[in-house]
Amino acid sequence: MGTYVLVHGAWHSGRELEQVARSIDAVGHKSFTPTIKGNRPTDSRDIGLAEAIQSIVDYLALNDLMDIVLVGHSYGGMIITGVADRCLDRIRRLVYWNAFVPNDGESLNDMLPPQYVELFEKIASERGDGSVVLPFPVWREAFINDADIETAQCAFSTLNPHPINTLRDRISLNVNPSEMQVPKSYVNCTEDISLPHHYPWHPRLSQKLGLFRLVQVPGSHELCFSNPTRLAQAIMDAGRD
Amino acid sequence: MGTYVLVHGAWHSGRELEQVARSIDAVGHKSFTPTIKGNRPTDSRDIGLAEAIQSIVDYLALNDLMDIVLVGHSYGGMIITGVADRCLDRIRRLVYWNAFVPNDGESLNDMLPPQYVELFEKIASERGDGSVVLPFPVWREAFINDADIETAQCAFSTLNPHPINTLRDRISLNVNPSEMQVPKSYVNCTEDISLPHHYPWHPRLSQKLGLFRLVQVPGSHELCFSNPTRLAQAIMDAGRD
Amino acid sequence: MGTYVLVHGAWHSGRELEQVARSIDAVGHKSFTPTIKGNRPTDSRDIGLAEAIQSIVDYLALNDLMDIVLVGHSYGGMIITGVADRCLDRIRRLVYWNAFVPNDGESLNDMLPPQYVELFEKIASERGDGSVVLPFPVWREAFINDADIETAQCAFSTLNPHPINTLRDRISLNVNPSEMQVPKSYVNCTEDISLPHHYPWHPRLSQKLGLFRLVQVPGSHELCFSNPTRLAQAIMDAGRD
Repeated sequence: MGTYVLVHGAWHSGRELEQVARSIDAVGHKSFTPTIKGNRPTDSRDIGLAEAIQSIVDYLALNDLMDIVLVGHSYGGMIITGVADRCLDRIRRLVYWNAFVPNDGESLNDMLPPQYVELFEKIASERGDGSVVLPFPVWREAFINDADIETAQCAFSTLNPHPINTLRDRISLNVNPSEMQVPKSYVNCTEDISLPHHYPWHPRLSQKLGLFRLVQVPGSHELCFSNPTRLAQAIMDAGRD
Repeated sequence: MGTYVLVHGAWHSGRELEQVARSIDAVGHKSFTPTIKGNRPTDSRDIGLAEAIQSIVDYLALNDLMDIVLVGHSYGGMIITGVADRCLDRIRRLVYWNAFVPNDGESLNDMLPPQYVELFEKIASERGDGSVVLPFPVWREAFINDADIETAQCAFSTLNPHPINTLRDRISLNVNPSEMQVPKSYVNCTEDISLPHHYPWHPRLSQKLGLFRLVQVPGSHELCFSNPTRLAQAIMDAGRD
Repeated sequence: MGTYVLVHGAWHSGRELEQVARSIDAVGHKSFTPTIKGNRPTDSRDIGLAEAIQSIVDYLALNDLMDIVLVGHSYGGMIITGVADRCLDRIRRLVYWNAFVPNDGESLNDMLPPQYVELFEKIASERGDGSVVLPFPVWREAFINDADIETAQCAFSTLNPHPINTLRDRISLNVNPSEMQVPKSYVNCTEDISLPHHYPWHPRLSQKLGLFRLVQVPGSHELCFSNPTRLAQAIMDAGRD
């Protein structure tokens, strides 16, 4: 069976993917859910994208993980792309789950609509500690639109302030994703409206992968909370050979 | 539990939504299915959009309905937008179900492709009583494409001639939907081809709501006939807090 | 009950649709799965589109099939359009399943993205026998993305080299599909990425049918292998009156 490494999105940590990991492991795989540097409780929120990527490179080395299916959610797409550029030999397949796909020199902000960039900068400047948080109404209507209010509130309470530099920093890549010599998949949750409709995840970002496998699944951007079992199945359909 | 008011589309009446209402009430909610002025058996077909809207404003007042989830289907989107502009204090959430979303000064015809406007005007001028009807082949292939022929025919027989002025009249609003201080949802039936593909319901019309919750469900424009239970669930997913 | 004639796509033969046919027949219909000239084991690969179409016209005459639901998959859309132009009196409804829809004078290549035309011409010129084959990685990721690797490999082994002239030849039609006096349906598999995202099957090609019924079903371009029962149901939903 396979080895899955699940890399979370902005405001999340590895803990929020543990239920998904448990569903994947139930089939006989082995899953890992690291937390990216900058999202751990005691981390400084002043870190940037390069450090965040390096923390997952280090995690793979420390645990000597080989032949892995490397999965990235949302902001996690920045991370897995950077990791793949640095240690492709550890990776069997890349899986982007409603995730950003950067080319060399692009920042996450470059792929956001201007109104989100403005909103996040405004919130960060008010907070003044290098971090940004998400307003609850946006979370409830646009991120976790497929859950009931109790799940939405409970999930919101697990989120952590996100280091805004990781959204501003341009990624440095030797090879763009479409040229990386590794199979790639894109998991698209069909009710994900966290990005507005003229800035969709798929196909706007997915097609930057070149040849890739599409897996679609009903659900919002936060299917890890609203239906972790269904998400686990989609990730396994995306991650198999 | 909540109070749902279901506002039908053109050619329909409240009766065609009774099965949906029964499924919503089975969970413990209380549903209402008024018929808009102009679609009741003895109504003149010469009425316009303002009168149609006023009839639902009056209905809410007469029944003293407060804290309601106000749902509009298709043409019903014109109605609930006008109602919300006049008595927002009665409304907990607006739910558009494959519905038109007008800004101030827009008519339903402004959101239709030219070929439909032409077809409807031609039919109305032939009928000469202020009403328009839908040709059966268009109904069968493009409106109720997910049902068998018996359901399609039976549903067609319940339709009533629709007052064409309500499609021509421009709505008068103090506030556009995106600025209305109330939560909004959009239910999108994924096989709805009643509008052609370059004039889709979602995201062309849904995005006029500003921040909104998307709920998608398999089905045609007439899911109230082909699967009222599934539609009721989608409306409740859209209508909850 | 009805009569279904299922016309396969490029690289396929009628045999690959037999499981679908069996599911349709289980309901009480009668299905036929002819193999187009040029895809049979002993056929020359030098034949062109007109001969390919004629072979299905002849098949219908030989078997005296009347009142049929004529279904075409992918390249099979070229064939059923040509057949309908020649013997519309035999046809009750046309069903395009992720299929090409040509107007008079168009070739299949005219509806392909340039990179596919180039790839296929390159492969054909290397083979030198008038045929083209599909590289396995493209098949696995973009054609049969919803199956496991065993199904993908097994299905790949059943494919046959396809006569490239049938992709190059322009079809000659007296009447374009949108003007054909017969009901039409389009079955769209929602995870079909065999055509890239800016050259989609639906609505780019489906809308060339004029008024048509849309049926959508989860699955890849090769749902005949990954879930023949589900495909059969979609074809029957598309094929009924």
